[in-house]
Amino acid sequence: MNQQKIAVLGAGSWGTALAQVLAENGHSVTLWGNNEAQIAEIKEHHTNTRYLPDLVLSSSIQAETDLDKAIADTDAILFVVPTKAMREVAKNVAARLTHRPQIIHASKGLEQHTHTRISEVLAQEIPETKRQEIIVLSGPSHAEEVSRRDITTITAASTNEQAAAYVQKLFMNDYFRIYTNPDVIGVETGAALKNIIAIGAGALVGLGFGDDAKAAIMTRGLAEISRLGVAMGADPLTFIGLSGVGDLIVTCTSVHSRNWRAGHLLGQNHSLDEVLENMGMVVEGVATTKAAKELAEELQVEMPITETIYQVLYERKDIQVALKEIMLRDGKIENEFSIED
Amino acid sequence: MNQQKIAVLGAGSWGTALAQVLAENGHSVTLWGNNEAQIAEIKEHHTNTRYLPDLVLSSSIQAETDLDKAIADTDAILFVVPTKAMREVAKNVAARLTHRPQIIHASKGLEQHTHTRISEVLAQEIPETKRQEIIVLSGPSHAEEVSRRDITTITAASTNEQAAAYVQKLFMNDYFRIYTNPDVIGVETGAALKNIIAIGAGALVGLGFGDDAKAAIMTRGLAEISRLGVAMGADPLTFIGLSGVGDLIVTCTSVHSRNWRAGHLLGQNHSLDEVLENMGMVVEGVATTKAAKELAEELQVEMPITETIYQVLYERKDIQVALKEIMLRDGKIENEFSIED
Repeated sequence: MNQQKIAVLGAGSWGTALAQVLAENGHSVTLWGNNEAQIAEIKEHHTNTRYLPDLVLSSSIQAETDLDKAIADTDAILFVVPTKAMREVAKNVAARLTHRPQIIHASKGLEQHTHTRISEVLAQEIPETKRQEIIVLSGPSHAEEVSRRDITTITAASTNEQAAAYVQKLFMNDYFRIYTNPDVIGVETGAALKNIIAIGAGALVGLGFGDDAKAAIMTRGLAEISRLGVAMGADPLTFIGLSGVGDLIVTCTSVHSRNWRAGHLLGQNHSLDEVLENMGMVVEGVATTKAAKELAEELQVEMPITETIYQVLYERKDIQVALKEIMLRDGKIENEFSIED
Repeated sequence: MNQQKIAVLGAGSWGTALAQVLAENGHSVTLWGNNEAQIAEIKEHHTNTRYLPDLVLSSSIQAETDLDKAIADTDAILFVVPTKAMREVAKNVAARLTHRPQIIHASKGLEQHTHTRISEVLAQEIPETKRQEIIVLSGPSHAEEVSRRDITTITAASTNEQAAAYVQKLFMNDYFRIYTNPDVIGVETGAALKNIIAIGAGALVGLGFGDDAKAAIMTRGLAEISRLGVAMGADPLTFIGLSGVGDLIVTCTSVHSRNWRAGHLLGQNHSLDEVLENMGMVVEGVATTKAAKELAEELQVEMPITETIYQVLYERKDIQVALKEIMLRDGKIENEFSIED
């Protein structure tokens, strides 16, 4: 593959780690962010100490606060901004685009109020005349592990097979392994919704439950996020893949996961305000819980775990009572949707 | 539900924990084993210190080495013996049966050489004139956690819906939650094959890899055991349930799992002989790896992770080289079988 010119929008831990992968693969990378001090640090010292303290970035990586400069002449633009900033950044990009790059995103969430998936937000804000395809990058990954070149596997999803293969080639190397998938809806809903279950799994551990209970909430949680995903148009089998169960595993069983850590603190009886203050980073799962609860009502999908986490987060229900209730629901038949659905 | 008379065959950790659940639910339970000293300890002290050192058993639990006495007048017989002993114990039971109890099993494996599932072994050895239905009990569970009444969720699978519901009622209580499933093949293959992946996940951690690599081998491993299961007649969606991904999670992420621990020791460069000696308990995954490798060849299913673990276990291939190779295979499309299969 020839060298590609890529803008990475968002200089948090994941944007920074992905910029580094692209630079190591020989591409020309500009990392854009709106924090002047942070961008200056990346420019001058090739570090981003707030987000990835142990990483020294390739000196070939440019850093920019000027969006015009960042996206000029790019082959692809990679969006890695928080979900709540996605629409505004997409609008700003669209207003400036005079060519047609590939649009990739690696964010995980659903837009508040509208419940829109991120690829839909991008499609709504960036007209087809100003872009090629939209591709989603998602999978079980911690920025910290990618930045120290641990083996990581990721899904590149697009309804356009060639576009997915383009992103696969862009990122693939010895430690960063890309699989393609045509099911954008399944990949995006799995990635967003698994954060709700991670909060629940963290809370159970915080409350003192063991591995059996953790496996139970993860499995029953996977069943209910699959149900919602299928109601939104996803292939149920996508939830058995990297962006579904893979991401659920890494998010629910790793100390690096901020959603899990938020749940763990809630389980130890800290208030939501304390938890969010303590974290100092975006906890996507908190907003996603609200979006999913509303979507589940709208689409008439039963999501008992999500409903419970919602009550704990937004209605200050006692977490111990709430989680015990949910684990003690009546026994049921296991698969609510069948292969014929 | 009226009090049922149950024989539990096999006084290892899982048989003992299940006997205790049944006794707490008010049933009349006889625990059978062939180790005189162990059965005497259970009879006299209500403990089974070799397998569950912290548990004091209900005094209502009978213990027996005499199989005739153990199975007399039972409503159900629960088989929890190692896979390699299953056929012989089933033969012995069949020779003694003069009534028609329900047959339940809670063992995880595939018979060596014949590759037969355990419910098939039971069906072959116990004629229909000597039994009711055959039901499989399987899910993410550690005997240690069940015996201290941590919440645990389990699948009861039978092609006969009423039989599955009977087992659900038999075991269900506040901490032991049963879901029914009609897919016996999917539940049994998931339970057996996940032990192979647990060995691989343990080995990766032993070699020093991180959470991303662990999630990768678990997810790609789930894909390949689903492939084999589907080729054997399973519903692919069963692998997303408690007996599939649920059991995979608990086996691959918990210090209690002997298959994971065996892999972990292998990753730290201990030999297979050392590992098996060190464990002092049955490591089902070692035998299952051989059965699955042979089945995969027979059914022409691609199982690269299983093949690799096989080479490490049986052909003394260097584990670091082998696992690195497997993680660095070419990028692929994610779902090899589609919903229409």
